[in-house]
Amino acid sequence: MDLLIKNGTLVSSSGKYKADISVVNGVISEIGKNLIPDKATKVVDATGKLVLPGAIDLHTHLAMPFGGTVSADDYFAGTRAAVCGGTTTVFDFALQDFNESILDTVKRRDAICAPDAACDYAFHVGIKDLSNGLLTTMDDAVKFGVPTFKAFMVYDFGVQDGDLFRLLEHSKKIGARVSVHAENRDAIAVLTKRFLEEGKTSAWYHYMSRPEWVEEEADIRAINFAKALGAPLYIVHVGSKGGIEAIERAKKEGVEVYAETCPQYLEFTSDVYKRTDARDFVCSPPMKGKKSKDALWRAINMGVVDTVATDHCPFQKTEKDWGKDDFTKIPNGCAGVENMYPYMLSEANKGKTTIETVVKLCSENPAKLSGCKKKGFLKPGYDADIVIYDPKLDFTITNEKMHSDCDHTIWEGKKLKGYPVMTFSRGRLVYENGEFKGERGWGKMVKRSLK
Amino acid sequence: MDLLIKNGTLVSSSGKYKADISVVNGVISEIGKNLIPDKATKVVDATGKLVLPGAIDLHTHLAMPFGGTVSADDYFAGTRAAVCGGTTTVFDFALQDFNESILDTVKRRDAICAPDAACDYAFHVGIKDLSNGLLTTMDDAVKFGVPTFKAFMVYDFGVQDGDLFRLLEHSKKIGARVSVHAENRDAIAVLTKRFLEEGKTSAWYHYMSRPEWVEEEADIRAINFAKALGAPLYIVHVGSKGGIEAIERAKKEGVEVYAETCPQYLEFTSDVYKRTDARDFVCSPPMKGKKSKDALWRAINMGVVDTVATDHCPFQKTEKDWGKDDFTKIPNGCAGVENMYPYMLSEANKGKTTIETVVKLCSENPAKLSGCKKKGFLKPGYDADIVIYDPKLDFTITNEKMHSDCDHTIWEGKKLKGYPVMTFSRGRLVYENGEFKGERGWGKMVKRSLK
Amino acid sequence: MDLLIKNGTLVSSSGKYKADISVVNGVISEIGKNLIPDKATKVVDATGKLVLPGAIDLHTHLAMPFGGTVSADDYFAGTRAAVCGGTTTVFDFALQDFNESILDTVKRRDAICAPDAACDYAFHVGIKDLSNGLLTTMDDAVKFGVPTFKAFMVYDFGVQDGDLFRLLEHSKKIGARVSVHAENRDAIAVLTKRFLEEGKTSAWYHYMSRPEWVEEEADIRAINFAKALGAPLYIVHVGSKGGIEAIERAKKEGVEVYAETCPQYLEFTSDVYKRTDARDFVCSPPMKGKKSKDALWRAINMGVVDTVATDHCPFQKTEKDWGKDDFTKIPNGCAGVENMYPYMLSEANKGKTTIETVVKLCSENPAKLSGCKKKGFLKPGYDADIVIYDPKLDFTITNEKMHSDCDHTIWEGKKLKGYPVMTFSRGRLVYENGEFKGERGWGKMVKRSLK
Amino acid sequence: MDLLIKNGTLVSSSGKYKADISVVNGVISEIGKNLIPDKATKVVDATGKLVLPGAIDLHTHLAMPFGGTVSADDYFAGTRAAVCGGTTTVFDFALQDFNESILDTVKRRDAICAPDAACDYAFHVGIKDLSNGLLTTMDDAVKFGVPTFKAFMVYDFGVQDGDLFRLLEHSKKIGARVSVHAENRDAIAVLTKRFLEEGKTSAWYHYMSRPEWVEEEADIRAINFAKALGAPLYIVHVGSKGGIEAIERAKKEGVEVYAETCPQYLEFTSDVYKRTDARDFVCSPPMKGKKSKDALWRAINMGVVDTVATDHCPFQKTEKDWGKDDFTKIPNGCAGVENMYPYMLSEANKGKTTIETVVKLCSENPAKLSGCKKKGFLKPGYDADIVIYDPKLDFTITNEKMHSDCDHTIWEGKKLKGYPVMTFSRGRLVYENGEFKGERGWGKMVKRSLK
Repeated sequence: MDLLIKNGTLVSSSGKYKADISVVNGVISEIGKNLIPDKATKVVDATGKLVLPGAIDLHTHLAMPFGGTVSADDYFAGTRAAVCGGTTTVFDFALQDFNESILDTVKRRDAICAPDAACDYAFHVGIKDLSNGLLTTMDDAVKFGVPTFKAFMVYDFGVQDGDLFRLLEHSKKIGARVSVHAENRDAIAVLTKRFLEEGKTSAWYHYMSRPEWVEEEADIRAINFAKALGAPLYIVHVGSKGGIEAIERAKKEGVEVYAETCPQYLEFTSDVYKRTDARDFVCSPPMKGKKSKDALWRAINMGVVDTVATDHCPFQKTEKDWGKDDFTKIPNGCAGVENMYPYMLSEANKGKTTIETVVKLCSENPAKLSGCKKKGFLKPGYDADIVIYDPKLDFTITNEKMHSDCDHTIWEGKKLKGYPVMTFSRGRLVYENGEFKGERGWGKMVKRSLK
Repeated sequence: MDLLIKNGTLVSSSGKYKADISVVNGVISEIGKNLIPDKATKVVDATGKLVLPGAIDLHTHLAMPFGGTVSADDYFAGTRAAVCGGTTTVFDFALQDFNESILDTVKRRDAICAPDAACDYAFHVGIKDLSNGLLTTMDDAVKFGVPTFKAFMVYDFGVQDGDLFRLLEHSKKIGARVSVHAENRDAIAVLTKRFLEEGKTSAWYHYMSRPEWVEEEADIRAINFAKALGAPLYIVHVGSKGGIEAIERAKKEGVEVYAETCPQYLEFTSDVYKRTDARDFVCSPPMKGKKSKDALWRAINMGVVDTVATDHCPFQKTEKDWGKDDFTKIPNGCAGVENMYPYMLSEANKGKTTIETVVKLCSENPAKLSGCKKKGFLKPGYDADIVIYDPKLDFTITNEKMHSDCDHTIWEGKKLKGYPVMTFSRGRLVYENGEFKGERGWGKMVKRSLK
Repeated sequence: MDLLIKNGTLVSSSGKYKADISVVNGVISEIGKNLIPDKATKVVDATGKLVLPGAIDLHTHLAMPFGGTVSADDYFAGTRAAVCGGTTTVFDFALQDFNESILDTVKRRDAICAPDAACDYAFHVGIKDLSNGLLTTMDDAVKFGVPTFKAFMVYDFGVQDGDLFRLLEHSKKIGARVSVHAENRDAIAVLTKRFLEEGKTSAWYHYMSRPEWVEEEADIRAINFAKALGAPLYIVHVGSKGGIEAIERAKKEGVEVYAETCPQYLEFTSDVYKRTDARDFVCSPPMKGKKSKDALWRAINMGVVDTVATDHCPFQKTEKDWGKDDFTKIPNGCAGVENMYPYMLSEANKGKTTIETVVKLCSENPAKLSGCKKKGFLKPGYDADIVIYDPKLDFTITNEKMHSDCDHTIWEGKKLKGYPVMTFSRGRLVYENGEFKGERGWGKMVKRSLK
Repeated sequence: MDLLIKNGTLVSSSGKYKADISVVNGVISEIGKNLIPDKATKVVDATGKLVLPGAIDLHTHLAMPFGGTVSADDYFAGTRAAVCGGTTTVFDFALQDFNESILDTVKRRDAICAPDAACDYAFHVGIKDLSNGLLTTMDDAVKFGVPTFKAFMVYDFGVQDGDLFRLLEHSKKIGARVSVHAENRDAIAVLTKRFLEEGKTSAWYHYMSRPEWVEEEADIRAINFAKALGAPLYIVHVGSKGGIEAIERAKKEGVEVYAETCPQYLEFTSDVYKRTDARDFVCSPPMKGKKSKDALWRAINMGVVDTVATDHCPFQKTEKDWGKDDFTKIPNGCAGVENMYPYMLSEANKGKTTIETVVKLCSENPAKLSGCKKKGFLKPGYDADIVIYDPKLDFTITNEKMHSDCDHTIWEGKKLKGYPVMTFSRGRLVYENGEFKGERGWGKMVKRSLK
C-alpha cells in the first residue's frame, strides 16, 4: 500500500459515505473501514474532508493558435493550473490542418503535449477538411484511441451542413461521437458586418452580434441531423435557455444528445460586456442573459446537463486589447481550468446544487462519455486521481493565486466556500495547499473507446 | 343589377345560409332574401347549389423556365385551367434575375402575363440577389402593390442564411412578408451526389434524397429567424409531419408564422415514387409518408394550416422522361391549379373536413394573407368572383377534361364528389359545365397591401 | 321593408365591410350597397358606426334563490339591463329540484320568466338529482329544445364524480352537452373550515379558500372524463392560468372541450379582495392573480377561449354585508349582463384584442355552441338582433346609468371607449342612447338543437 | 472479517467493476482488490458472478385481511419468499383501524411481524381515519421511524379528497411523505354497478370497470394537490401510459413526485383477463394495454420511473374462485415478492434495460426514498444485504420452486435468463441455490428518516 487516505467522506453521484481509501501503484486498491497502512505507506488524514474523484475537463484549448497569437497557457501551464484546481485529466482540441489525415493531427499535437503535460490528457480532433477521402481517416484515430471529434458550425474554418451531415453519419458507423460548436454562422456574419459599418465596435457588440437564438437555431439543426441519422451528438458550451430547452425536448424524444455547459455561463451574464474590462470576457459563445443562466441551473438540477467543462482558452491583457476599436480583433476565450471544480463545488455548498451532482457532471459523466475506462470514480481498480476537498475553507480567487500563465482572470474576486487541499494524479501528490507539487511530463495520454 | 344568383346556399368560414346575391359592375351589390331582378338582369338559379367565393391560388409557376425548358402552361393556359376549377385569382412567382431591381422583375413578368391572363392575378417575387443595394429595391415593389416575397432555402439560385436573415429583417420594416421554400440544401446535395455515384438514379431516389426531416429542419431554422426578428413568415408547401408540428409549436409560442400546404401532399404519399409513372410525380418537396399526410389533415382541422395552394408547375411527359436515367434531370413540378378547389371541396363532402374550412383555406385566408382587399368573401362591395358548386355532381378527373396545356395529370382517375358548374370573374361568366367561357387578357393585376 | 340601417360598417368574425341592412318581420332581409327604403320603412343612419349582431350571454342567474335571498335582478330587470348593454339573448340556469323531472324544471322556470322577459332567452338546466331514473328525463328536455345542462362540481347540491360521469356519458348519447362549474369541493371545504376556525373571516379568505389550482384540478378531472367518454364538455367561467392551459392542451389532443370566461376575470385580479368594498366582488370562482388574467387574454387571442359570458348574479349591498364577519355568508355573485359587450368592445378599441374577436366570442360562438340557429350573425334570414355601436363614444360606468335593479356595480368608474347607441331585438328598438325602449314580455324562449 | 466475497463484479447504478467485498458483524467492511481473509473468514468465490445489493420491496401486503380472507403469505412465508428472490428488505402496509392512533397501528402490526420476519422489514401506514385529531398522531410515527404513509383514493375505507389534502399538507410539515393508490373511485363504482346489472360478471369486467384513464385522472388530481401544497408525493403501482406521462410532465415542472411500477405491469397486458385463469390475475389496478406496458418500459429507461415494487398480495385458488360469477368477489392481488429482482435482472440481460438501472430501481432508490440509511448500496459501513447473481443461469418459474405459501403464481412458466445463487441478510446466508437457509425472526424493523 503506497498511500492511505483515512477518515474522509467519499463522494459519488449516488451519495456520500465515510471510508478509508488505499492506493497501490497509482491505482485505487481498497475502500473500507479502518484500513491498516504498511510501514511504507504515506498516510493522509482526511477527517472532516471530502474525498472526490479528480475532475475531467473535456474542453480546453492549450497552446492554441488563434487570431494571430497563441493561447496563453501551453500544455505545461494549463495542466499545472488544472491539478491545482482538482482537475486531473484535461481534454484538448487538436485542430486538423487542411489536407491532413486525422490521426496525423493527433500525433502532431501529442508531440507538443507529451513532454509538457503535468496530468493525464486526451484529444478530441477538430475537423476542418473532409475532402479527398479524409473522412475515413477518422477510423484510424478511433483505433488509436481517439473516438471524439468536433465540428465548428461557426468560423471560416468550420464545416458546412453537408460535411456535418457526413461526419455524423460516419461517426455512427465507426463508434465515434461528434461534438458541435453550435451557432448560426451566417446570422453572426450579417450582424457583425453591420455593427462594424455602424461604428459599433465595443465588446458589447460581440454579444449583440451573437444574439441568444443563434445558438438555439444551430443546436436544433445539429439535433435534427443527429436524430435523422440516429447518430449520437454532443453539444459543447451550451449557454442559452433556448438551446438547453431544445436539448431537453430532444432527449425526451429519445435522441442521443449530450449537453455540456461551462462555469462562466453559470456565473456571469451578458452584463459583463458593459464593464470596463468587458474585453476580458469575450469568448464564443458569449455570456447570455439572466434567463439563460437560470435555465442552465435548472437543467443541471433536472439532469438535462450532462457535463461541465471550461473551454479554457486565455489570452493576455495586451492581446485582448487588440480589439479595443474592433471587437472582432479580440482573441476569443477565457481562463477556467483551475476554477471549474472549486467553483462548482462551492456553488453546491451554497445550495445551488448538490456535491453529488457536481461529481457526476465534472468527473463521472465526463469519464463515461469520453470513454476513459479507469477515470472518474473512486473504485478499486480505477486510477488514483483523487482530490481532498475542505468544504469549510474560504477562498477568494485572485490571479496571483492561480497557476496559469495568463496575466488576469475573469474570476478575480470570486469568493468560494470550500477548496481543494490536495490533488493526486495516479496516486502522486501534484497539488497541496495552494502549491503545485507535480512535474512536467508526468501526464500520459488516455487511450479511449466509446464501446 | 347585372347578375342575380337566386336560391343558392352561400358559404363562408362562419357557416352556410340561403340567400340571393346580386352583382352590379363586377361587384357584389346585395345579399338578401327574394331579391328582385331588373329586366336586364341575368338570373341564375342556384337551387340546391352552393355559392362560394372563387378560390385564390397563392402558388403557381406559369411560363416558368426550369431545367432547360419552360413549364407547360403559359399565363393564358394556366389561368384558363384555374377558372375551370373555380379559382379566380392566381399568384405567380416572378423570379428576380441577378442584378435586377425587384420592381423591374415584377414589370418584366407582368408584360408577359397581362395580355394573356384569363383571370385576375398577382405576383410574389422570388429573390435571388441582394447584393449592391438590391435589398431596398423591395420597397418600390411594396409601394407598387407587391408586398410578398419568396426565399428559396434550396437550389443554387436560392439564398444563404445571411440573406434570409436580411430579407426577414427588412420585410418587417417595410410591411412586407417573406415566404420560404424550406429544405436543407446541403443535406440534399450530399445525398443526391451519393445516390448518383451509387447508380441509384430512379425517381424513388428523388424522394430518398430529400428525407422528410430536411423540410422540418429548414422550417425550424426559418422560424427561429422570424422569431428572433419579430418578422412574419409564410412557409410554402409544407408536406411533413415534423414541419407542420414545428409550425404548430411556433404559433403556440406566438410567432407569426403561416403554413401553406398543397392538395398533392393531402392525397398522395411517397408510394407514388414506386409506380411506373413515378417521374410524373416528381416535385420538390416530394410527397411524404402516410404519417405526414395524416398529420396535415389533422392540422387542417385544428386550424394550424392557413392556406392551401397548388405549386402548379407542370411539364410534358417527354420532359419528365429526360430524367429516366438520372432523377436530377426530371423537371420538378406537377399540374394542380384546376384541381385544388374541386379536390378540397370533394374531400369535405366525403367528410375529411368541412366546406367552411375549405372556403377559409382556399379563399378567405389567401385573400387576407396576401392583402387582396376585395377578394375572398361574398359580401357587398367585394369583387364578384363567384363559384356555383353542385355538391352532388360526380366527376372523375381525366386529362382530357382538363384545361391545362399539359399532356397528363397526376390526378388522372381521381373520383370527386361535387364539382363547380359555373365560375364568375368579376361578374363575368368564365366557366360553365366543363367549358371555358372566358377570354385571354380579361384578368387584371391585383395591387395589394398587407396593412 | 320595416327597418333599414344605412351606411354602417358590419362586423363579423371574418372582418368588417360597409353595407346597408334591411329588416322585414323581425328578420334580416337584405344586406347590400344602397338599399332603397319603402315609404313605411324606418331608416336609421349608421354612418361612422359599427353594426353588430346582438350579444348572447350564455351565463346568467336571474331571480335566483341563493344564500337565503334571491338575486337582485328578476327576469325583467335582468333582460332590461341586457338589451341596454347590447345583449339580445340571455341564458338562465334553471336549477332542478330534488326529485324533479328535468323538463318540469324548465317549465317551472319558464312560467316565471316568460311574462317578464324583455329579450329572447333560453335555459340551461342545473342538475341536482339523477336518482330514480331522473337521468333519462334529460331526453325530453332535449326534444323540447333544451340540450344544454350544467353540473356543479362544487356546492352541497352539486354532483359527485359518479353522477358527472353518468351525465357526460348520457349527454353524448342524446346529442346534449354538459357544462361544469369546476372547482375541487373538498379542498375548498377543508380550507374554509380552517380559516373560519382561525378567525380569518374577511372577504380575502373567500379568495384564499379557493386557491387558483382548485379550478385547474377540477377542469382536468372533467376533461379526463369527457376525453374518456368521447363526450363534449363546456367549462364555464374559466378564470385561472392553469385551467385555461389545461383546456388548451386538451383541445390540441382533440378533446371536444369549450372554454367560457367572464369580463370580471379579464379586468380584475384578486387584489380587489383587499379593498374596503371587497365583499361586492365575492363570486365563485373568485378573481384570480395577474398571471391568470394575462393568460386569459392570451388565450382569447390564440383562439383557446370560445365564449365570454357574465355569470350575472348580483346581490344588494345589505345582502353582501351579511358576510362581514364570515365570508361564507356573503351571497356569491356580481352584476355584469349590461357590461359584457361594452367592456369587451372597449378593450378591443383599446387594442387588447379585435372587434372581430369580440363578435365571435360574445355572439357568433355562443349562438353556434348553444344551438340558436337564427342568432349571432348579420345574415339574411337571421333574427334582426342588432346593435349599433359608436366606437368613439366615451362612457364611464356608474350604477346610476345601469338598468339593473341592483344598488351597486363592481364596474363603477370603469371608463370605456365606445358604447352601444341602439339595440334592436327582432327588429324592434329596445334601447337607445341610454334609455330602455323595450317592454316586459317581448322576449321569447329560443328552442335549440345541437345537431 | 466474517465473510469475504471474492472476484465478483460489483454493480451499482453508476457501473460495474471487479472487486472483493468483506463483511464484519453484518456490515460491509472493505471493498478492494485481493482482500486477504482471516482464518475464520467464510470465503465465497464469485468469479463470473454479479454481486448486487439486496433488493428492497417497498410494496407488499402480508398477512393482510381482505375480502373475507387473509392474504396467503404471513410475515414468515412472505419474507422467506423475498430472500429466495434476492429481496432483503420488505415494506408492508400497516392499515390503520378506525379511531386508532397511527403509532398504535405500527405497533399492532409489528407485534405480528417481528416474531416471523426472515429478513429486515419496515412499515408504511395506510390511513383510514383522520377524524378527532388523528392527523397529528402521524407525528409520533415519524419520530418512531415510520415517515411514510399511504392514502387510498379508491375503496370504501380510503380517504376523500379533503383528507388527502390534509394528509399531504401535514406530511410536508413533519418531514413525512404520502403515497397514493390513485384511481377514480366514483367512476369505478358507476361502471362496476352497471356491469353487474348487465350480467357482465367475468374477470374481464374487472378490467373494463377500471378503464386506463381512471388511474391517470387520479394521478393528476393527487399531483395537483401535491404541487399546490409543495408536498412530496409517491404514486404506487403506476400502470398506465396516461399516468406515467402525467408524472413525467409534473417532474419536468419541478413537482416532487415519485413513480413506482410493478413487474406485472411490465410483463403482462390486459389480455390475461381473456384467459381461462383470468381470475388469478385480478389485482387493482389491473394490467393495462400494450401501449401502457411499452410506455412504462420507456419511462424506466428515461429515468421517469423511480422504483419497482411488487404489490405482493397472493390469494389461494379457491379464494380467487369466489368471484367466478361476480368479479367483485375475487380477492385482489397476486404473488410477486420472490419474482421482482430475478425478473427485472433477466429483462436487463435480455436487453430491455440495464443491470445498473435495475439495481437503481429495486435497491438504491427504494433505500433513498424510504429513508433506509444503511441499505441499498455496496459500500463500507452499509448492511451486508448482498445477492450473488449468476447472469448465465437459465431458470423457469414454477410454483413448486417458489417459497411462498400460495398455491399458484401468475409467473408460472416464465423463462428467466440469470438467477440469484446466494442471498445474504446482514452478512448471514439466507438463501442458496434454490433453498431457503434463513430463520424465522431474524429480521429487524428498519427505523427510518427522510431527512
